[in-house]
Amino acid sequence: MLKPGSVIGILGGGQLGRMIALAAAELGLKTHILCPDKDSPAFHVSEHHICAPYDDFAALERFAAGVDVVTYEFENVPLATAEFLAARVPLRPGAKALAITQDRLAEKSFVRDLGIETAPFAAVDDLAGLEAGVAALGLPAVLKTRRFGYDGKGQVIIRPEEDLTAAWHALGRQSAILEGFVAFEREVSVVAARRADGAFQAFDVTENVHREHILHTSTVPATLSAGAARQARSIARAIGDALDYEGVFAVELFVVGCGADERVIVNEIAPRVHNSGHWTQDGAVTSQFEQHVRAIAGWPLGEVARIGRVEMTNLIGADVHDWHALLAEPGAHVHLYGKDEARAGRKMGHVVRVRRDPEACTNIPEAGC
Amino acid sequence: MLKPGSVIGILGGGQLGRMIALAAAELGLKTHILCPDKDSPAFHVSEHHICAPYDDFAALERFAAGVDVVTYEFENVPLATAEFLAARVPLRPGAKALAITQDRLAEKSFVRDLGIETAPFAAVDDLAGLEAGVAALGLPAVLKTRRFGYDGKGQVIIRPEEDLTAAWHALGRQSAILEGFVAFEREVSVVAARRADGAFQAFDVTENVHREHILHTSTVPATLSAGAARQARSIARAIGDALDYEGVFAVELFVVGCGADERVIVNEIAPRVHNSGHWTQDGAVTSQFEQHVRAIAGWPLGEVARIGRVEMTNLIGADVHDWHALLAEPGAHVHLYGKDEARAGRKMGHVVRVRRDPEACTNIPEAGC
Repeated sequence: MLKPGSVIGILGGGQLGRMIALAAAELGLKTHILCPDKDSPAFHVSEHHICAPYDDFAALERFAAGVDVVTYEFENVPLATAEFLAARVPLRPGAKALAITQDRLAEKSFVRDLGIETAPFAAVDDLAGLEAGVAALGLPAVLKTRRFGYDGKGQVIIRPEEDLTAAWHALGRQSAILEGFVAFEREVSVVAARRADGAFQAFDVTENVHREHILHTSTVPATLSAGAARQARSIARAIGDALDYEGVFAVELFVVGCGADERVIVNEIAPRVHNSGHWTQDGAVTSQFEQHVRAIAGWPLGEVARIGRVEMTNLIGADVHDWHALLAEPGAHVHLYGKDEARAGRKMGHVVRVRRDPEACTNIPEAGC
Repeated sequence: MLKPGSVIGILGGGQLGRMIALAAAELGLKTHILCPDKDSPAFHVSEHHICAPYDDFAALERFAAGVDVVTYEFENVPLATAEFLAARVPLRPGAKALAITQDRLAEKSFVRDLGIETAPFAAVDDLAGLEAGVAALGLPAVLKTRRFGYDGKGQVIIRPEEDLTAAWHALGRQSAILEGFVAFEREVSVVAARRADGAFQAFDVTENVHREHILHTSTVPATLSAGAARQARSIARAIGDALDYEGVFAVELFVVGCGADERVIVNEIAPRVHNSGHWTQDGAVTSQFEQHVRAIAGWPLGEVARIGRVEMTNLIGADVHDWHALLAEPGAHVHLYGKDEARAGRKMGHVVRVRRDPEACTNIPEAGC
């Protein structure tokens, strides 16, 4: 268990690392950031950082010597980096969570082996494999690289009658996974925390709307039956337990079926704090960032109760130019990441709006199809 | 008006500077801290700081060159420092607020000249002046240095029949103010924000309990009649206007009288964020720290609504050793300042407890005497 005053090392200096660092500071912890990007937003909020590539082992050695625990803000930490650090200082979450979630095929197989439903999938290692996968799953389907995809990058949709060779080449002829099309009603996620001893807390299920593969809004409570919400939560718990997970993670889910048949199936696991959990900063008793810090410090998990109806809206690219109007909006909680350039598609900040109805804290609406 | 990405310079690196820096970061602003103490808690949460005395003008020159606005976390900033900086970069709040609040006699006279009631007081420049003051105000009374007092330091209580010469020597024979005894029912405070254009917002009146001259708890709503609460708020507004104030400030008040005679009289003005406003971090829509940043940035002030019944408890000295139990208490919001040594009387952190009753947000109880 960490003591106040300990140092949390964070791999990755983007907005997630920044918000972890801010939450750590509120709890009296220091942080140290390692990131190759000299303009890292997290550097602004920490006294110490190292600007170096993730495979600079001399830098990693110095980094490890200055911290009491290491965590990360993104799942694509190179495994060699993770293992090098884990040999020197506790790495939380551990390398197992990284190994599985870095590989879409390993992740889907891991989930299926837990008896949890996912989109139908097939491994694709060559054009023949792609043809076999399409024969088994049908079209449309999505061909995704096994590694290093995010926000819609590293994937191509294959529609009926499309040329498989072109798709295979578009993805760069690398090891891939073909995922069958899921006619989902909605996308939701569960953001949860687990400690090494198995203690577990999940925030309320969040309903997510994407635009151009990037999260646009998260709304809580999600439109979801109580049964499907319970199912989502128990899926998160099973995944956390199977990974011996320490920290906050998210499970992205598709809602399928109607009425009594409504259920959730797993889309993706993120072994980190997650954009769809940003609403907790202003809409829950404990934020996901504080919860992550508590979990990796071995401290008691915080209360996850929601304090109203909540909507989180991402500020993508030029959206951030509305900052002044948003600051003037009564009750809107504005979070800006300190990034200089509002490039298209870049996450610049987010806004959380909370409606503090007394009954809004418990109500989970039934799904309508 | 500052743009996101601008740099706020903060004089003073204690917990107040630290919490201003954290609030600035959430709004996409950078910070730069100047403080002579190398162990300053605010250094931990900012990429840039200068460790130098406040009268190191070469350091101040470098500091001013790296910031867009300067603010401060304590009222004892030397006036020469304030004026040096104000000649180079906007200083918010301005030097006028410092000049008046650094001198207890000037402050009390300023308040009285606004037609606002204070404790009875007399200037004391020598022993004869002390004798004259005692003759006018009676005993008991409190003899206070005009400058550089805080948390009960720089003051001595004179009880009936006590030796005035001893009291005068105890205070070091410096310019002083004698304050008549006020038989107050309770101590309360108003934490408010004002922008350069006169925009004004006050948080709900807070009831404060001190132990050994150090704030122990703040409770909101205060036990106070609606009329006295309105009076407290209009006093804060009048003081803010008269100081052309920019930023957050606090007015400490004594509640005197009963029933229809209940009223407040001014004890002290603090030209900065204030310990009795810490409850706003978890108990109001906008925290006093965010509000201060908004005000000095020239941004719209945030909503001040309270979200329940709130109690803030300071963790003084060894109190902080309870950190683990506090983290385990459901719904307790723990804030630790990252100070190494839990010396007696040192502010190490605070805890905010919020009871989210629907009616708790509006109810102001009537006073009982």
